Amino acid sequence: MAAAAEKPPTMERTTRDMEKLSISAYGKARSTVTGTPLSPDEVQKYTEYFHASLYLCMGMIFLRENPLLREPLMHDHLKKRLLGHWGSDAGQIFIYMHMNRLIKKHDLNSIYISGPGHGAPAVLSQAYLEGTYSEVYPHKSEDVEGMRLFFKEFSFPGGIGSHATPETPGSIHEGGELGYSLSHAFGTVFDNPDLITLCVVGDGEAETGPLATSWHSNKFLNPITDGAVLPVLHLNGYKINNPTVLARISHEELEALFIGYGYTPYFVEGSDVPSMHQAMAHTMDVCINEIRRFQKQARDSGQTFRPRWPMIVLRTPKGWTAPRKVEGHYLEGFWRAHQIPLPQATQDATQLKILEGWMRSYQPDKLWDGNGALRVDLKALAPTGNRRMSANPIANGGLLRKKLNVPDFQQYEVEVKKGGGTIFPSMKNFGRFLRDIIKENPHNFRVFGPDETESNKLGVIYEAAKKAWNADYFEEDADGGNLALEGQVMEILSEHTCEGWLEGYILSGRHGFLNSYEPFIHVIDSMVSQHCKWLEKCLEVDWRVPVASLNILITATVWRQDHNGFTHQDPGFLDVVANKSPEIVRIYLPPDGNCLLSVMDHCFRSSNYVNIVVADKQEHLQYLSMEDAVAHCTKGIGIWDWASKDAGVEPDIVMASCGDVATMESLAATALLRQHIPELRIRFVNVVDLFKLTPRWAHKHGMNDWEWRAIFTEDKPVLFNFHSYPWLIHRLAYKRKGGPLTVRGYKEKGNIDTPLELAIRNGTDRFSLAIDAIDRIASLGNKGAAVRERLLNQRISAVNYAFREGMDPEELTKWVWPFEDGNK
Amino acid sequence: MAAAAEKPPTMERTTRDMEKLSISAYGKARSTVTGTPLSPDEVQKYTEYFHASLYLCMGMIFLRENPLLREPLMHDHLKKRLLGHWGSDAGQIFIYMHMNRLIKKHDLNSIYISGPGHGAPAVLSQAYLEGTYSEVYPHKSEDVEGMRLFFKEFSFPGGIGSHATPETPGSIHEGGELGYSLSHAFGTVFDNPDLITLCVVGDGEAETGPLATSWHSNKFLNPITDGAVLPVLHLNGYKINNPTVLARISHEELEALFIGYGYTPYFVEGSDVPSMHQAMAHTMDVCINEIRRFQKQARDSGQTFRPRWPMIVLRTPKGWTAPRKVEGHYLEGFWRAHQIPLPQATQDATQLKILEGWMRSYQPDKLWDGNGALRVDLKALAPTGNRRMSANPIANGGLLRKKLNVPDFQQYEVEVKKGGGTIFPSMKNFGRFLRDIIKENPHNFRVFGPDETESNKLGVIYEAAKKAWNADYFEEDADGGNLALEGQVMEILSEHTCEGWLEGYILSGRHGFLNSYEPFIHVIDSMVSQHCKWLEKCLEVDWRVPVASLNILITATVWRQDHNGFTHQDPGFLDVVANKSPEIVRIYLPPDGNCLLSVMDHCFRSSNYVNIVVADKQEHLQYLSMEDAVAHCTKGIGIWDWASKDAGVEPDIVMASCGDVATMESLAATALLRQHIPELRIRFVNVVDLFKLTPRWAHKHGMNDWEWRAIFTEDKPVLFNFHSYPWLIHRLAYKRKGGPLTVRGYKEKGNIDTPLELAIRNGTDRFSLAIDAIDRIASLGNKGAAVRERLLNQRISAVNYAFREGMDPEELTKWVWPFEDGNK
Repeated sequence: MAAAAEKPPTMERTTRDMEKLSISAYGKARSTVTGTPLSPDEVQKYTEYFHASLYLCMGMIFLRENPLLREPLMHDHLKKRLLGHWGSDAGQIFIYMHMNRLIKKHDLNSIYISGPGHGAPAVLSQAYLEGTYSEVYPHKSEDVEGMRLFFKEFSFPGGIGSHATPETPGSIHEGGELGYSLSHAFGTVFDNPDLITLCVVGDGEAETGPLATSWHSNKFLNPITDGAVLPVLHLNGYKINNPTVLARISHEELEALFIGYGYTPYFVEGSDVPSMHQAMAHTMDVCINEIRRFQKQARDSGQTFRPRWPMIVLRTPKGWTAPRKVEGHYLEGFWRAHQIPLPQATQDATQLKILEGWMRSYQPDKLWDGNGALRVDLKALAPTGNRRMSANPIANGGLLRKKLNVPDFQQYEVEVKKGGGTIFPSMKNFGRFLRDIIKENPHNFRVFGPDETESNKLGVIYEAAKKAWNADYFEEDADGGNLALEGQVMEILSEHTCEGWLEGYILSGRHGFLNSYEPFIHVIDSMVSQHCKWLEKCLEVDWRVPVASLNILITATVWRQDHNGFTHQDPGFLDVVANKSPEIVRIYLPPDGNCLLSVMDHCFRSSNYVNIVVADKQEHLQYLSMEDAVAHCTKGIGIWDWASKDAGVEPDIVMASCGDVATMESLAATALLRQHIPELRIRFVNVVDLFKLTPRWAHKHGMNDWEWRAIFTEDKPVLFNFHSYPWLIHRLAYKRKGGPLTVRGYKEKGNIDTPLELAIRNGTDRFSLAIDAIDRIASLGNKGAAVRERLLNQRISAVNYAFREGMDPEELTKWVWPFEDGNK
Repeated sequence: MAAAAEKPPTMERTTRDMEKLSISAYGKARSTVTGTPLSPDEVQKYTEYFHASLYLCMGMIFLRENPLLREPLMHDHLKKRLLGHWGSDAGQIFIYMHMNRLIKKHDLNSIYISGPGHGAPAVLSQAYLEGTYSEVYPHKSEDVEGMRLFFKEFSFPGGIGSHATPETPGSIHEGGELGYSLSHAFGTVFDNPDLITLCVVGDGEAETGPLATSWHSNKFLNPITDGAVLPVLHLNGYKINNPTVLARISHEELEALFIGYGYTPYFVEGSDVPSMHQAMAHTMDVCINEIRRFQKQARDSGQTFRPRWPMIVLRTPKGWTAPRKVEGHYLEGFWRAHQIPLPQATQDATQLKILEGWMRSYQPDKLWDGNGALRVDLKALAPTGNRRMSANPIANGGLLRKKLNVPDFQQYEVEVKKGGGTIFPSMKNFGRFLRDIIKENPHNFRVFGPDETESNKLGVIYEAAKKAWNADYFEEDADGGNLALEGQVMEILSEHTCEGWLEGYILSGRHGFLNSYEPFIHVIDSMVSQHCKWLEKCLEVDWRVPVASLNILITATVWRQDHNGFTHQDPGFLDVVANKSPEIVRIYLPPDGNCLLSVMDHCFRSSNYVNIVVADKQEHLQYLSMEDAVAHCTKGIGIWDWASKDAGVEPDIVMASCGDVATMESLAATALLRQHIPELRIRFVNVVDLFKLTPRWAHKHGMNDWEWRAIFTEDKPVLFNFHSYPWLIHRLAYKRKGGPLTVRGYKEKGNIDTPLELAIRNGTDRFSLAIDAIDRIASLGNKGAAVRERLLNQRISAVNYAFREGMDPEELTKWVWPFEDGNK
């Protein structure tokens, strides 16, 4: 460590017994490829740049005054509460600055993704040194006062966070939750052939499931049409309080693991700064050359292949360049370096002294001039303009976003002459619409899904684009496998990877769409939640330009799991999403095919939202003509006159529904009631846009109270049949005044069910709803009781029939649906 | 394929050009180790047992009559709707029956975990052949009528599902959602030194993140005190509609991957049944011998080490033994074999004919006698009694569950003389309680967590047991690393793996506890949801004995993320859990340390629940003595007389709270109000048990309406301060009549916040609440307005102070908390 000599005497630096250790992060650099591409002068300058960066990190964590230590350090110069993380900073800086060298050398188009948790000081230090930070936030200027503010506002009330949050120039990946760096990185390079995304993976993060599988993204990358990711696994050795798995297995196992994942691993290990600079510079040269050679080979020949892409394993001590020991305990190279390395410095004179000595060992006076400007020769080490990773527009993807070419969705109309008169799979025409969007946007739009696109009845999209597949092919694949080396459809059985790819693709300025089974979309609750938070925060950052919305179609829904059973029944993703910021989230439940088209068209054209659309993949009754669907979806909620019987007067009851199956059952209940009690005045209401139900002040889509009353009446009973757990409706509508609101929806009961049986069990079937309605209208008297009895018997016989025959639900639908009688 | 000769002529069986393929599942067996341990007679018998199993699978998928094909097959014999999955059945059967051979040979104690989705026919066929199925479900007897019912009820209304659901004898892993087989398997063998769990991992499942990282579980296994897992990666080649990644990489990469994960992979590949039997029998011999040799070496020497445990890669064609082609399309060896292999058989005469020929090719007449009893010599191939994997009591863990030794929690009392007079970290004494539970239950209880136990202030537990770590050690580890080869604390940075281990540990009859940060517990939403569903379904299966509850402590909560920022703020896990079955879920938010102890004691002693406890890890005000805490937690909700001022009369307002920080702020607001408006009658209510708020009919813990009114009054305003998103309270309480209920809680707004600033932003701070209360009591008039103004100013100055000073929140708590004035 270059600066060791100047450290105060209380810092111990033991000689580590290399033999005793199976794997060491200490000593002169050891690397897979060796070379000394740097001149001694360059080594010196890189070391100084490294020190400048490290000094900034320490400043961010500790100081609120005296930024360049022009005065002796006093307790009052420190923040009262120390927050922030030191552990991975040195390693990340080291990687970043060596990429800078290659960017300058080859004029590379690159961005940096910071995987390790709390790596913000590293990234911020680079943005500040590159000048981007001061360009974006002029008060944090490149002078002493600017540096002071830059330090003070880090992890400070009203300031900035300890992750690479949206306020961080050059970031598309906050990293607050671990595990998504690599899938985000791959997302950025799809259809970005010139881009090389540098992705640092923390060894803590590497233990997460989503990260562990995302290494396989290389099987979905085409070296001709896509760019490249250069992953750097940073073996820091420790997490918060534990060793990391990958730092504690043999070199042989570690190397095998990455060969197994399909990479060529290059190791760079050690702590001696000058030799580490040489080793890293040479290794980066080799890796970037390899990437460029693979790309050239594929592009010149037009022959795609799957290269063994390079990746780097960088092993450095955690908290690298910190004192090795403080007060008898390991600091550098141990988990104690994870967060604040000298936590008592605010009160303890000895720690303050250590801190001062340590910070001065980076020699700030030599690095910045009297005004706090970085030395010109050091500044020259970084790229300029948009080549700076902190200023690359790809990391502010809205800047680059092109309008999606969306064909006129109305030409995919499902022909509907009469409400409820047709059975048709809504996905069929939507699939065609989606196919043509793919066709119109060959390098700007991709579809993602965990091996469910065909099952979700969207297979028609393969007419426009195949599934990207760059692993081995079997002869059977030609028999309708729909695989190709170049494709716009991305399918891997990992919801995490699909979502991560999509997020990376969108955040770097493109458009996309994810389709997934409803029961397992909970797998990515946390990811979607984090993306909502990212977007919410971007709204507050004025230089962030809106990106395309994240569009998720949830299908294979709870009511049509048929015999898949209880584990496939969970419509609760909506509850998770509904908790997120109303600025960001939109939830749509189109009741039929034309509504699905209209809603999806809207979603594809929108920006900065997370749009969740729920629609089942099976055959369903169709209700609205295209014209009616557009009108209905534009309003988001409406009275269906054709299904109502209230002739302009106040109804006896409002039958409301939200969701395709829920709507079918509710309509059927209405038909039953009309058949049995013709004099009953029923109003039928359908909700497409879920947030219509919430007050206007709570969500932009919300209805005013007078709108609510115009639809749901002042005092009449409302029987609401809902797709999901019933309480969500109460949660949205709890402020509303009006008649008594009864909601039916899914409740957890552990059984295998046919669709009708499942509905009956939950009270969401036509018979139960009709009975429910009768029970809510006191005036019906004896006639109501008689009808009630008849409906109860019908319900029993329907279920018995299903039990006996194990019928196809389509057949069941026809059997009990009184079309002709029930509709106008 | 032994039965090929008898197949009808429409089935094509092409000769596969082996050279053209990079990797083939076809032909004579190829394997890493070769040997022929079976006699020709044994090969014949194993093939017949295999055929019997396959026949049963086909029967389950297709037949409802004519189970043994004693009559020519007719459309009427088939189910009207075909449901179920054929793809992985043959491979899974093959693995299972070869394990049987080793169980018999060595008298092994083993269970079988079926990872691939929809593998139920394979597992059910084995349970039926072993007789377990008929023992458990006597009407599905081992005769013709029993077989008919066994077939008919598979994937049929009112019948059983197409996963290894709780109704399946021998199953602890339904596999409805993919990714958890291996972590479940490892969970079963911790502290079960005699157990060898056979875990089949599907190659689709292997793409999921949770599965991809769970291979690293071997670094946490001790060969002396734990048992072993034998993983079999089943390379089926295809998922629903896509190839699988691991089946499409080179042998070299695949082998390297598993060496990298720390295993010794043994390959068995091919489709020729007789030679595959020899190869598999020999490979299993080698693997089981290796496991036993490693265990003996470690146990005899007392020296633990990390063996390169064996694992098997079995490559067979998807839908193995199906016709290779049907009507010109690949079936065997392609994704078309995934689900129903002949989907038109119900209507199409040709497919019916193919089906009949195919089923007869297994020669049912030779396998079962006239009464439908399996041939005695075939029956003899399976183990008997509890050695049958379908009858092993470990897979009905409640049978083996020992009572947890729980020390008297009252001895860990936090001394509280006066409500709100002490600041103390609630985790401190709970940690001691937990430490002593660990001590008292050395082989029966484990703590799981993603590297957060120390951060969650529970580090004292390491006094009783270390963290299990069986990878390399560094010298720094001795400096407070708390690692050991044998430990009861399990920490890996994968919430998925932690949760999977814990579920496996509990389901096999032990007790456990997971602690995790609140913001990232959403990572396992889907897993916890699936475990709830498993338990819910177990309630309906009379032979399933209750297991220990799944206890999750959520800490590092939203209100005390301090400067971690927006990504660390998400209290929404409760919404996900609250949707699950009320029979299963319990949610507790203890307001202080003694309540935490009382609640946790209850959770540890309970069974078959999923208990979620939310309590922050920082220092907090303490309110209740142990005696009061026990009384309060037993009721679950209560009026705190010491904090109230309503002297037995109806109050002007009810201040209610749920959650530790929420309670502090609400109490402080009450104190402010009493200070400023002494004549105000305030009732203070605290909720520990969240489901108290719901009606009794909706949850066993729910209050009756009269109880509700006794606490919340008939008509007085209620101002409820809640830990989580406010709508959850409305969702639980929407049926309640009473005064106007206002709920404050967390809402998504993207900023970095100090605790007080965050509270103010959400209206959950003391000042906002006091102002809120004033606004709700019309009678206060001008006096109220004056106090309101004063409180608004206090609020502004508190925030300004925080902004200026970046204060420690503890300090802030003291600064603004008017203890002395506010309490009786």
